[in-house]
Amino acid sequence: MTSASLVNGRFANNISLDNRGLAYGDGLFETILVRKGSALWLDEHLQRLAQDARRLRIPCDTDVLAGDCSRLLANLGANDAILKIVLTRGTVSRGYSPLAAASDRIVSLSSVVPASLRYWQQGVALGLCQTRLARQPQLAGIKHLNRLEQVLAAGEMQRRGFDEGLVLDETGKIIEATRSNVFMAVAGSLVSPSLNDCGVNGIMRQQILAAAERLGLRLKVGVVEMSALRNADEVFICNSVIGIWPVIKIECMHKAIGPMCRQLQREFESHFYA
Amino acid sequence: MTSASLVNGRFANNISLDNRGLAYGDGLFETILVRKGSALWLDEHLQRLAQDARRLRIPCDTDVLAGDCSRLLANLGANDAILKIVLTRGTVSRGYSPLAAASDRIVSLSSVVPASLRYWQQGVALGLCQTRLARQPQLAGIKHLNRLEQVLAAGEMQRRGFDEGLVLDETGKIIEATRSNVFMAVAGSLVSPSLNDCGVNGIMRQQILAAAERLGLRLKVGVVEMSALRNADEVFICNSVIGIWPVIKIECMHKAIGPMCRQLQREFESHFYA
Repeated sequence: MTSASLVNGRFANNISLDNRGLAYGDGLFETILVRKGSALWLDEHLQRLAQDARRLRIPCDTDVLAGDCSRLLANLGANDAILKIVLTRGTVSRGYSPLAAASDRIVSLSSVVPASLRYWQQGVALGLCQTRLARQPQLAGIKHLNRLEQVLAAGEMQRRGFDEGLVLDETGKIIEATRSNVFMAVAGSLVSPSLNDCGVNGIMRQQILAAAERLGLRLKVGVVEMSALRNADEVFICNSVIGIWPVIKIECMHKAIGPMCRQLQREFESHFYA
Repeated sequence: MTSASLVNGRFANNISLDNRGLAYGDGLFETILVRKGSALWLDEHLQRLAQDARRLRIPCDTDVLAGDCSRLLANLGANDAILKIVLTRGTVSRGYSPLAAASDRIVSLSSVVPASLRYWQQGVALGLCQTRLARQPQLAGIKHLNRLEQVLAAGEMQRRGFDEGLVLDETGKIIEATRSNVFMAVAGSLVSPSLNDCGVNGIMRQQILAAAERLGLRLKVGVVEMSALRNADEVFICNSVIGIWPVIKIECMHKAIGPMCRQLQREFESHFYA
């Protein structure tokens, strides 16, 4: 299959030049793994989208969006795919002011390059991005369409031949990777950076935090300095398409694949590789 | 007239859903005033676009863009309009990495709501936005498509009934207004915030800085604290569509319209109101 898209419920491959997503990045998106015809954590993605939309005051009807998703998935059969939802604040009026409450929804299904089982099993090497994330509490955690920092950071990694890279905030704290969240095992605790000032609060991150609680792991979500990374026994990254990848190297710093990462991978393995 | 748009040189009203401008705000834009059929400071806008494009590593051919502008302007006659150029980094491949160097260009001409002569003459009241600008030196000064901060700030002002609002950075320094740059007269000097950490380096701002030098005004571009605003004898805002508007009030703080603002307005009046 190639791809199919619904724009406000109609099949289309393009969108008006007046769309505020194009004009200002004024919108949100979700990227959802579809395995054997079924969208993984669709409700969680829609709830996150609705929550982020409330913060940006963009109207969001999750029932209508779920209906769009069902229509596209109905033709997929038991295949794998990527489902992408984009919700923008409708069309440009004059300038930045949102004026009337409106939104456009774009739901697309596209063929999937299978997530790397090799990385899941054997781990991945990360670079350290020079690009820093700006601190913006009003947008922190939100999966919005203003992603130039990620484009710059990912471009760095691409030029240096890394598949993924760690990104710090302007003060040097560890926040996330360019398209994934980061976890560490430090002195027996599962540690993850807080996302109060920047970063995207990924669905896979949320699933791991919930699993950690379920499994009785000691959990610390807070400020993570580079020293914590150096002291970490394990490092791993996650997102809702790749699942969990152990990190075996950050620049020249080697890390072992450890029991905490493997335990969490086992919790989610069936979703990604059954 | 309504509007006409060229997408990569062809008349169109829409763009592919794969465009990276929509997906990530991965692009740039220019908004240009057209008076009596002639685009004001077109070369300067194209040069700024090319300079910003180099910083983001987006290919930009100003000759081709100038050709698109000429084609649209040819049908306009001696009318007023707004010319908008959007340059994006082509289509989405997989994820944030830019991969191959590519770009899409969108050039649009639309009917213009005449800039307010009343504001030019009698001044405008500003609010003070709660939304702060994040400090991101890698993107500072660039007129890119990641404009959620401006959307949030403009939304605040819209709800409070202000036409424009002053925006500070996260440390409380004055940077700009939501869609314009800001100048002050402080103790006989013309003062404007530096834009090394955030803000857009507008073409009208650049024209005013050049005029100030030409006119022999004492000029200070640097950090501007709120105390400078309180001490300022004059405050005015500018962009390349409205020209220069004196500020007569910021929240409850009154300001007089003074000689420095009027002198600079006279320098540019013919471009906007001849």
